[in-house]
Amino acid sequence: LIQGSNSQRCSTFKTTAATVDLDSETFVRADQVCEWRSPEQLKELLDLELRDGGESESKILQRCRDAIRYSVKTTHPHFFNQLYAGMEPYSLVASFIVEALKPSLYTYEVAPVFTLMEDAVLRKMIEMIGWEEGGDGIFNAGGSMSNMYAVNLARYHHFPDIKEAGLSAVPRLVMFTSQECHYSISKAAALMGIGTKNVRSFLFRASFEQRPCCVYFDVCNTIKRNSLCVCVQGAVPFMVNATAGTTVLGAFDPIQEIADICEKYNLWLHVDACWGGAALMSNKHQHLLKGIHRANSVAWNPHKMLMACLQCSAFLVRDKTNLLQRCHSSSASYLFQQDKFYDVSYDTGDKSVQCSRKPDAFKFWLMWKALGTGELEERVDRALATARYLAEEIKRREGFRLVMEPEYANVCFWYSPPSLRNLPDGPELWKKLHTVAPVVKERMMKKGSMMVGYQPHRDKANFFRMIVISPQASRLDMDFVLDEIHNLGKDL
Amino acid sequence: LIQGSNSQRCSTFKTTAATVDLDSETFVRADQVCEWRSPEQLKELLDLELRDGGESESKILQRCRDAIRYSVKTTHPHFFNQLYAGMEPYSLVASFIVEALKPSLYTYEVAPVFTLMEDAVLRKMIEMIGWEEGGDGIFNAGGSMSNMYAVNLARYHHFPDIKEAGLSAVPRLVMFTSQECHYSISKAAALMGIGTKNVRSFLFRASFEQRPCCVYFDVCNTIKRNSLCVCVQGAVPFMVNATAGTTVLGAFDPIQEIADICEKYNLWLHVDACWGGAALMSNKHQHLLKGIHRANSVAWNPHKMLMACLQCSAFLVRDKTNLLQRCHSSSASYLFQQDKFYDVSYDTGDKSVQCSRKPDAFKFWLMWKALGTGELEERVDRALATARYLAEEIKRREGFRLVMEPEYANVCFWYSPPSLRNLPDGPELWKKLHTVAPVVKERMMKKGSMMVGYQPHRDKANFFRMIVISPQASRLDMDFVLDEIHNLGKDL
Repeated sequence: LIQGSNSQRCSTFKTTAATVDLDSETFVRADQVCEWRSPEQLKELLDLELRDGGESESKILQRCRDAIRYSVKTTHPHFFNQLYAGMEPYSLVASFIVEALKPSLYTYEVAPVFTLMEDAVLRKMIEMIGWEEGGDGIFNAGGSMSNMYAVNLARYHHFPDIKEAGLSAVPRLVMFTSQECHYSISKAAALMGIGTKNVRSFLFRASFEQRPCCVYFDVCNTIKRNSLCVCVQGAVPFMVNATAGTTVLGAFDPIQEIADICEKYNLWLHVDACWGGAALMSNKHQHLLKGIHRANSVAWNPHKMLMACLQCSAFLVRDKTNLLQRCHSSSASYLFQQDKFYDVSYDTGDKSVQCSRKPDAFKFWLMWKALGTGELEERVDRALATARYLAEEIKRREGFRLVMEPEYANVCFWYSPPSLRNLPDGPELWKKLHTVAPVVKERMMKKGSMMVGYQPHRDKANFFRMIVISPQASRLDMDFVLDEIHNLGKDL
Repeated sequence: LIQGSNSQRCSTFKTTAATVDLDSETFVRADQVCEWRSPEQLKELLDLELRDGGESESKILQRCRDAIRYSVKTTHPHFFNQLYAGMEPYSLVASFIVEALKPSLYTYEVAPVFTLMEDAVLRKMIEMIGWEEGGDGIFNAGGSMSNMYAVNLARYHHFPDIKEAGLSAVPRLVMFTSQECHYSISKAAALMGIGTKNVRSFLFRASFEQRPCCVYFDVCNTIKRNSLCVCVQGAVPFMVNATAGTTVLGAFDPIQEIADICEKYNLWLHVDACWGGAALMSNKHQHLLKGIHRANSVAWNPHKMLMACLQCSAFLVRDKTNLLQRCHSSSASYLFQQDKFYDVSYDTGDKSVQCSRKPDAFKFWLMWKALGTGELEERVDRALATARYLAEEIKRREGFRLVMEPEYANVCFWYSPPSLRNLPDGPELWKKLHTVAPVVKERMMKKGSMMVGYQPHRDKANFFRMIVISPQASRLDMDFVLDEIHNLGKDL
């Protein structure tokens, strides 16, 4: 199960519960990333029905083998399909321990170790962000939830009455975000009763060219006057979401400029660094997030480039006045008794909108402890160097074309089969090019040789999006991907 | 790590990734449930700081041992502190597979096996609820999120414009719930902009006595006229939350009567059966949820009494018009391309407000497959019989007194040390009794002999709440708990 690990120092790691043999390269590069079956085929293969009687151990073992066999090997070195990949063995060990111990984080009494570890990891992440006076935070079930927390905290900060009285007690609220933001921002607005129409998008930077940012003028054109209480077409702005590492293009919004505007207009600044936060580990690349210390809140997922096991998502907030708890608390008497025999400030559960919550921070803590910040930094640098190599290779090779110069680990490009290479640039070409990526994708899935995503994006025809994550991706793998795309698509 | 398993048939279970030895009773009843350390002591013991350099394998192994040692053993047979306990080995195997495969549920392409398994489990749960025409659903990161989904779907069902336009486009909304409901209902109202004041509590039944329900009259007194659009003090009611198995008392709201009201007034009926849903597995006890087939949505956590690993929480909805997807979708182009080569109705990710989502259904599917519905039914029956035994024992023993006759697996009771037994019933006695449980709790934690929760509740002084979960709890364990409470508290 465990593959793609380049770690020499963690060759065989035993815990009480599990023996994880990292030497047995069960999956090597030549193995399939997936063994594609259509939903109909797979239903027949799996016998999904649940019955009155149980099954024998040997049958159940076969079910486990089947589940593994037909699952996508997201830890295979040729899986480049999502913003996560690869396997960090120390994190997996932590995951196994968590699963076997079955803890839930709400009170110190039930999860003493993991409560303290979460606190330690949050404090270290806060230090990396540069909040010198500290802050607060919580690990969530994913970055979407962290972004939702940001919207709720921003709203509560400006209008604490909403918690009790609801939105009907305040004017219509609007929030700002970069056009390239993750879709969880609009999902949060929908869920939280703000409404997706009240999320105003700005082109924080021209996404496909390296033009200087234009956010300042855009926001100023909309926010007419110098106060939060002044309305945008009758509504009140309360926050700006900036994205550090956008999902498709891996672009970084200019945090400094956005922070200037937020300070001027008293808007909460949230930085969605779920994907780009890893660059904070690197002296070479942390400039991408320059100004992040001015944010009011940050979302940062160590399960992405830093390779902690899924899920490992931190929400961090600069506030030191217990805003997180005040915003979310409901003081359930059966959990948060005030007459306990220990300091109940260690009962952190009321900071969350969840009740049971997994101790995901431990999956990051253990690997960080084992590898040290230095090794994490090296990995980020290596991934970004590999992505840079891929971009140069794309520029060098006939039939490949970059969508934009990559800033980060997303390398977006078109592939033109020979039949299209002599067509003049125009709607006809782009229409044809649009159909290439889906066919190449179908073929790679059915062959199982690799997984690379594609998508259309705004006015752009379907293009491939390679996500390069350290440490499992090498330059040879980059060559392989380009060769393979050509092999799969050259007849189109 | 794995303990408290009475399963004979799954004595040693090997997967590719892990060998789980269930015979080695690493923890037996005589072992400590926890080795209590104060936050300050534990911080010193754990060396939580994260540094630039990494640590040796042997040091990391010691860190794992420490994490395990000082964690609460929630799978110990004397852990009765929360609404989950014990370890189902088949579910743990599934958890390990999930952790090692690192899947995320949004598209069929990335998680083919787990997408189909989730569907199979949801369909079976829908069958158990009794929705003969089927339904829809999704597994979430906990029951709080499921309840939140219910509120959002109810709201969207009545006012689809809210998704885009927000709450400012509609009148103030109110929702109804039983007084004893889980705190996630008010958390949802706060997060979703409805406001906690717009959650109206009703005493669906007299909680401490077995009086007939009075919900009908209560709701009718508030909802003045026969239509949803008629207001409660200028606001519009849109849903009722009924609880099947309340958190503290394990009480069941009368679903039939509530469904009558909801049908009459066109209100969405949600049943929070996170805890009580397990009774649907039992022919003997499913009457507790009579009428649940009339609900519009149900939350049901197999990680509670059915002992699937944390977390395993289903949200189920009777709707067949894709309401779940329409309510939550944002159609991200990089995930939900419409020109894929397979049937994209299997891409279920847009039903969720999360992006990455763990395939928690597999943890339930594998154990259900192994045990069969029959064994799950037996376990529920056994747990409720054990809880009944405990209640009778409490009535029999001097110094113990039930808070109410248990309907389910929550057994709530006071313990009076001999010094209080001759005091007359009155404020003085209750004031003293209120201080007993916290001291007994402190002593049991420091001794590590067991974990049982306590809380005050409305006008009631602190009482113990025992949660009895099959199959690890025996009658001997019940005797142990009562003896131990007496031993720990008799000098007070």
